[in-house]
Amino acid sequence: MAAEIDELWGEDLAPVARALLSSAVRCFAARGFTGTTTRDISGGAGLSPAALYVHFPAKEQVLFEIARRGHRSALAAIDLPGCADPDDPAGRLRELVARFVAWHARHHVAARVCQYELAGLTSEHVTEIAAIRREFPERFRAVIADGVEQGVFTPVDVGRVVRAVLSLGIDLVRWYRPDGPDSPEQLGRFYADLAVSMVSGVPGPAAG
Amino acid sequence: MAAEIDELWGEDLAPVARALLSSAVRCFAARGFTGTTTRDISGGAGLSPAALYVHFPAKEQVLFEIARRGHRSALAAIDLPGCADPDDPAGRLRELVARFVAWHARHHVAARVCQYELAGLTSEHVTEIAAIRREFPERFRAVIADGVEQGVFTPVDVGRVVRAVLSLGIDLVRWYRPDGPDSPEQLGRFYADLAVSMVSGVPGPAAG
Repeated sequence: MAAEIDELWGEDLAPVARALLSSAVRCFAARGFTGTTTRDISGGAGLSPAALYVHFPAKEQVLFEIARRGHRSALAAIDLPGCADPDDPAGRLRELVARFVAWHARHHVAARVCQYELAGLTSEHVTEIAAIRREFPERFRAVIADGVEQGVFTPVDVGRVVRAVLSLGIDLVRWYRPDGPDSPEQLGRFYADLAVSMVSGVPGPAAG
Repeated sequence: MAAEIDELWGEDLAPVARALLSSAVRCFAARGFTGTTTRDISGGAGLSPAALYVHFPAKEQVLFEIARRGHRSALAAIDLPGCADPDDPAGRLRELVARFVAWHARHHVAARVCQYELAGLTSEHVTEIAAIRREFPERFRAVIADGVEQGVFTPVDVGRVVRAVLSLGIDLVRWYRPDGPDSPEQLGRFYADLAVSMVSGVPGPAAG
């Protein structure tokens, strides 16, 4: 688990700062932002209570760094070059969902903080994280709208389907366990197929 | 919002106890279980700090009552008599998803507490709530397995599809807002159609 968390932070941060962020992820995921003290975070990294303030002015700044770097990592994961054939919207959707889901499964602990603890941020920081978050539906919207336009997908309500597909990827951070039956990649492929089914079905009688 | 929360508690509780539970839902949803004091809960119900202890021995007992009554309410909502024609698995699945989703949208504030704050429970209470929670996948599993057996649905991996359908209904408590474009019932019908699509698709090339 430690390795997955540690890889989120990037080389621009001092090793001690990275250790503090990793400890904070574990604390926030277990006890919530409000239930965690700066002492918990320092102690979890094997440091003295004052050590945190050398690197972060406040606990909120720790949460912000986790949210910023977490969201950027997820965005980078779905923006990897790969299946980008504009004439294959189903392949692109499958790839996008597979990557989004696999990232969230692999990083389910940090992702839980990124999804459920944002109320701890200042309003300026909420605005900054919201700007990154808006990129995710945009990526899915582009692919699904293309598929509908090309007649490859059913004429679905794109915005609502995007929200549903994002929910599949996000809710798994609540229940995913690495010792369960699915690896992140297996779950990603399974959900990729479900997403393609969602845009390939006959519109139901109760749609509206 | 108050009306939706208040209707969860039942007539067996004194009005003051119900008011305390409703206040606690709002506090826990906004600040988390750990970030809420018993004084916050009493104050939110317009009562003195000591009033809570007349009705509940501890803050944890308040969370437990919310979780127990919340989960039972959701289960009662999906178990209403209605579309139960054993020869129409698609209709039964549609009805089940529509009810599950509509309940979670209507009660998204209380449901957020029921989904994201269970870590605040004692292990005895976790066990008791987990027993109610297991009923939900059972309901979906029965319908989807029937549909697969009757050949009405694609031979999907029932357990994984159940988890995905539950995720659609649960994740919406994170983002649903009553002033958004969808009423609980509209969202329920839309997700009902998505669920039927999920079990009607051609199994994808990457399934496994």
